[in-house]
Amino acid sequence: MRKLFFLALVLATSSLADEGMWQPHQLPALSSRLELLGLEIDPENLRSLDKFPMNAIVSLGGCSASFVSRQGLVLTNHHCVYGSIQYNSSPENNLLVDGFLAKQINEEIPAAPGTRVYVTEEMTDVTDKTLAGVTESTSGIDRYKLIEANRKALIAECEASGNHRCSVSSFHQGLEYFLIKRLEIRDIRLVYAPATSIGKYGGDIDNWQWPRHTGDFGFYRAYVGTDGRPAEFSEDNIPYRSNSFLEVSAKGVEEGDFVMGVGYPGSTNRYRTAAEVENQFTWFYPEARQFREDLISIIDENSAAGSQARIAYQSTLASLNNYAKNYQSMVESYEHSDFIDRRRQTESGLAEWIDSDTTRRAQYAPAVRRLQSLIETQQAARERNLVHSYMSYATLPSTAQRLYRLAVEKQKPDAEREPGYQQRDLTRFRQSMQAISRRYDETVDKAILSYLLRRYAELPEQYRSRALDSFYQIGTQIDQGRVDQIIQDSYAQSSLHDETERLAWLDKSVEDFQSSDDPLIQYAVTSHDERMALELADKELRGQFQRWRPLYMGAVIDYNRSRDRPIYADANGSLRVTIGQVRGNRPKDGLVNRPFTSLEGILGKDTGVDPFNAPSKQLDLIRAKQYGDYALPSLGTVPVNFLSTLDITGGNSGTATMNSKAQLVGLLFDGVYESIIGDWDFDEQKNRAISVDSRYMLWVMQYMDGATNLLEEMTIVN
Amino acid sequence: MRKLFFLALVLATSSLADEGMWQPHQLPALSSRLELLGLEIDPENLRSLDKFPMNAIVSLGGCSASFVSRQGLVLTNHHCVYGSIQYNSSPENNLLVDGFLAKQINEEIPAAPGTRVYVTEEMTDVTDKTLAGVTESTSGIDRYKLIEANRKALIAECEASGNHRCSVSSFHQGLEYFLIKRLEIRDIRLVYAPATSIGKYGGDIDNWQWPRHTGDFGFYRAYVGTDGRPAEFSEDNIPYRSNSFLEVSAKGVEEGDFVMGVGYPGSTNRYRTAAEVENQFTWFYPEARQFREDLISIIDENSAAGSQARIAYQSTLASLNNYAKNYQSMVESYEHSDFIDRRRQTESGLAEWIDSDTTRRAQYAPAVRRLQSLIETQQAARERNLVHSYMSYATLPSTAQRLYRLAVEKQKPDAEREPGYQQRDLTRFRQSMQAISRRYDETVDKAILSYLLRRYAELPEQYRSRALDSFYQIGTQIDQGRVDQIIQDSYAQSSLHDETERLAWLDKSVEDFQSSDDPLIQYAVTSHDERMALELADKELRGQFQRWRPLYMGAVIDYNRSRDRPIYADANGSLRVTIGQVRGNRPKDGLVNRPFTSLEGILGKDTGVDPFNAPSKQLDLIRAKQYGDYALPSLGTVPVNFLSTLDITGGNSGTATMNSKAQLVGLLFDGVYESIIGDWDFDEQKNRAISVDSRYMLWVMQYMDGATNLLEEMTIVN
Repeated sequence: MRKLFFLALVLATSSLADEGMWQPHQLPALSSRLELLGLEIDPENLRSLDKFPMNAIVSLGGCSASFVSRQGLVLTNHHCVYGSIQYNSSPENNLLVDGFLAKQINEEIPAAPGTRVYVTEEMTDVTDKTLAGVTESTSGIDRYKLIEANRKALIAECEASGNHRCSVSSFHQGLEYFLIKRLEIRDIRLVYAPATSIGKYGGDIDNWQWPRHTGDFGFYRAYVGTDGRPAEFSEDNIPYRSNSFLEVSAKGVEEGDFVMGVGYPGSTNRYRTAAEVENQFTWFYPEARQFREDLISIIDENSAAGSQARIAYQSTLASLNNYAKNYQSMVESYEHSDFIDRRRQTESGLAEWIDSDTTRRAQYAPAVRRLQSLIETQQAARERNLVHSYMSYATLPSTAQRLYRLAVEKQKPDAEREPGYQQRDLTRFRQSMQAISRRYDETVDKAILSYLLRRYAELPEQYRSRALDSFYQIGTQIDQGRVDQIIQDSYAQSSLHDETERLAWLDKSVEDFQSSDDPLIQYAVTSHDERMALELADKELRGQFQRWRPLYMGAVIDYNRSRDRPIYADANGSLRVTIGQVRGNRPKDGLVNRPFTSLEGILGKDTGVDPFNAPSKQLDLIRAKQYGDYALPSLGTVPVNFLSTLDITGGNSGTATMNSKAQLVGLLFDGVYESIIGDWDFDEQKNRAISVDSRYMLWVMQYMDGATNLLEEMTIVN
Repeated sequence: MRKLFFLALVLATSSLADEGMWQPHQLPALSSRLELLGLEIDPENLRSLDKFPMNAIVSLGGCSASFVSRQGLVLTNHHCVYGSIQYNSSPENNLLVDGFLAKQINEEIPAAPGTRVYVTEEMTDVTDKTLAGVTESTSGIDRYKLIEANRKALIAECEASGNHRCSVSSFHQGLEYFLIKRLEIRDIRLVYAPATSIGKYGGDIDNWQWPRHTGDFGFYRAYVGTDGRPAEFSEDNIPYRSNSFLEVSAKGVEEGDFVMGVGYPGSTNRYRTAAEVENQFTWFYPEARQFREDLISIIDENSAAGSQARIAYQSTLASLNNYAKNYQSMVESYEHSDFIDRRRQTESGLAEWIDSDTTRRAQYAPAVRRLQSLIETQQAARERNLVHSYMSYATLPSTAQRLYRLAVEKQKPDAEREPGYQQRDLTRFRQSMQAISRRYDETVDKAILSYLLRRYAELPEQYRSRALDSFYQIGTQIDQGRVDQIIQDSYAQSSLHDETERLAWLDKSVEDFQSSDDPLIQYAVTSHDERMALELADKELRGQFQRWRPLYMGAVIDYNRSRDRPIYADANGSLRVTIGQVRGNRPKDGLVNRPFTSLEGILGKDTGVDPFNAPSKQLDLIRAKQYGDYALPSLGTVPVNFLSTLDITGGNSGTATMNSKAQLVGLLFDGVYESIIGDWDFDEQKNRAISVDSRYMLWVMQYMDGATNLLEEMTIVN
């Protein structure tokens, strides 16, 4: 059954929804439509990871990018190389302000530690291997453990060379599994980035907004050892030679033109049931937003502006705030859309279709019913799950628990350990224990814990934890004064604040923990079994989902095939292709977003104050109408950013926007406000991706920064 | 010379700027262009105040309106009848929430006290009479006084009947004066207003914004005595019969259609010099904005939210805030426009044109020079003038000064008194003295005065007041503690807080004031001569402006005639005609405002929370696509608001937007954000007026409110 959906790709030629994050191997089946839309290269090429253009596309882990020369030159978003600019900046030499350009290859500087370029080499269907040993009668927990063990084994085998990073990714919610093998290039250097006042123009204010005028691009170069294999940084390393690279178009695109984006979208939820959608938008997002706003207030109240404590929580605050806003936007978009109505309609359509045929009823009805029942079970505990998920914001107690868990896991053979506690995870684990020193303040942490325990104490009886109730002396009522005193005492007696002490626990045994008199360690030990029991119950539920959701997805795919609707898998960080057109939208009644913005828009927007502080040289060039060969005739000036119907999400940042010849015409870097809800619901009329135009990149390189060496290195076409 | 500009109306047919607020008598000269644009009625009619359509157009004093039936039915904006809805509302019968509809004529209810309908009957050129006695050698102060005396005499004669309100209005900054005679109808009743959730939909958030979805309309009826003459309210009064009225179009307009607006724009500054423009936008608006924000902070800090004091300052705060925002927007618009460059260009063009001809040089060069010098003189004292202009925000001291001034003025014959202190002003004067009781709080007033004195003390030596310095013991430095103590004491010893005591001063003599021991009265008396000396100096300056600015305007008009540019006078509250088209705009790079919004936009915008809380009945009707006959085919639904290029300003609210047959197709009620600067600079590309569409009004009347009686009374055409 799990092969069914290939057939679903027989598309109605009358309309191709621009919705869809296609796996490379699906592209040939879309070929007639792709040709009709104007694709000028053989769609067959799009399925071959080792050919142009696919092997020019790389991942930075979280961002997408592409090779734009034979010498490992990588083009991606400014915000994707931002960490490396920051890392190389100092008060005396502030690259964030000035930008950076290596005029010669030996001037290139190391990117931030941990920067990687991943080249996807193989994507292999390993569904059978992943599900090996699983039968219809396998229990939830056993199914979960079997799949996990199989995945680990596949990954371990794949990573044996030491030069690859591998993953077993679930597609269609477990209907298929693919082993994805990526070459991991570890010596990455910063080559060029425009000034932040170009690369991040508009900043957070313009985030998710149109009109947009951001020069969101920058360059890395991938280096390998003299043997051509990935290596740590060394002066002797040489540029990586990819099989192919993208040419950069100086001609660019026009309204209505075919565009294609190939990159690594992170995660979407396009196939959730109506009950899940409703719960997410009417319960989870509003509640989680409140949680975040409460935490923000607590951090604000317990750390003076500008204090060391406030600085420590800067990135926590930014993240709390980002998602609080994101959730708010999600709710607003939901309330102003007919998303839930459409989802319910689709769902009744599916139900009727299943019910109208005896075979189908036998095949799919139980899966639909069982999935609904699992969702109900899951939602019944939503308050507890929400509170638990935020418990990690109390850094010190959760650190104790993670450290003890590590000691426990280390007793097992590596392959049997919980993911995150395996040998391959230990470097990152240690780094996260070090990072606490820069992101923690005792007063703030205690206030957060106090708040979380108050929220915890509001949970119904059956969701209460005996360990928590006992340690913090919480009964049917919470005595916040007493709780705060216990927090006070336990923090005072704990040595986990201290980085050396904390790191020492990384190497200690279970017995060391059990005999410790650190109260937070003690609590981690005494509450461990309870946590494991909860985790087990959770894995049992997940195992049940792993059984029934794929069957449900099979029904969805089969149903869509019956309606000639193609089905793509939810984004999962793997390589995907999206097809669309350059096109504006109507974001609101009475308002039209035009597809292009222009240089002159920068003049109109500039206030001289960050983030609207374009370099004065740039303003002068624009006033002098110094367009060079980069003007779009129909616009009469140089285009800066453009809108397209490409279907993208987080992770697509830096994705090459390509024309019909697979030449690079832009870089995807954001979506419009109406796209925020796009992870759940792609509305063709409203959803739009924003790219920085290749003509603007070339204009900045030529006229602003004189990056002639790179202009010469790249292949620029008209 | 002052007749010159009639000739300037010979327009280049190649382009008619939509800029222009034309006097009715100018319209025939525009006739060929008007016909070309599509006007289907005789332009001659537009100059006759007693014919259709002009005599259907009325003023409400601050708002515009029009008769839409033979029975004195008046259509204007919801925000223009808002005070009357409020006046008739009670907690039990909240017309603001529910709206109001008199299903029969005897259910109509009195409008708020002071509501008037003014019908312009005559506009007579009285330039000669206004300037009678003025010669080239008349001094500034004598010129000022002569003009004032002549104006008063003309007004007194015109108002002799007792049924008219007259004014002598300056056109082209004193180049011409017109006596405007308006019938003053005093019995006005509220007939119909939709719920505020329709009439003020979008509220302050959507103010000056597009897209817009406001049902900003409402109906009054004008009543007169049984003899057909204006009368105070009486049960026996009968509806006023106008000579004509506007038909209401159910067909409405389409993008690109001819539209015309006839109403009463309040005030514009389209002919200021570059020096005046620059001073206004780079000095006055920023400084005045800061003044207002400081005052807002002081009121906020000295009155607890929800307190009696805060309530008393609600409308003061709203007004301070409105203009602080307005000034901010002015500055932003200015900074992002090339207004000052264009103005400077025009000015050098004018200078070159004058300089290139000996006769012109003799005729105009002195006026240009003298005007510039007067402006410099005026700007030199700008800090003082600004501080003085805000002094009235300290209510109690300024009340004492106004009361004493009244006593002084009353010693003179009525015709010689300062305007504002004449017999015709006394009712309003008394009302303003009563109103203080509802708008004053001692703590707040003292804090405001303290702030104003601090600002005053920063003025350079030559702009200081001996009276102020002496009373508040301010030397080269201000001792704020001592000043505050003096404020404290003088307020404590004053009885002006008390309404009865305050009103008693209205009838007291100069001697009564002089012998009073109320410190604020004492200060008013001792500082009076100094204030009068300043006023005299100011009038001398104004008299000088009255001499030179008309000559300068003559040059401007002559210059524009030489370039085939028509010239209209700045708005001054008199009846004007504006001509344009239904058209969207491009407010920003990458963004287009479409000309129409639609019913469905209300669904998209509605949050259920004020001001986006449309009645549920309305949302249901829209969801059911109950369009009736009011849909615009190209839009596929009922249009709600539309944009046009009409040139309007404050006072135009309620102006009938008419089609080429002079049928009512909408009501002007606002402008887009880009129009805020329009009082100074009309940018054809950006300036847009917003009208509520007649189809939406009729739709609301028919489907929401069942106002069948009014639909039958009006003449609705297709």
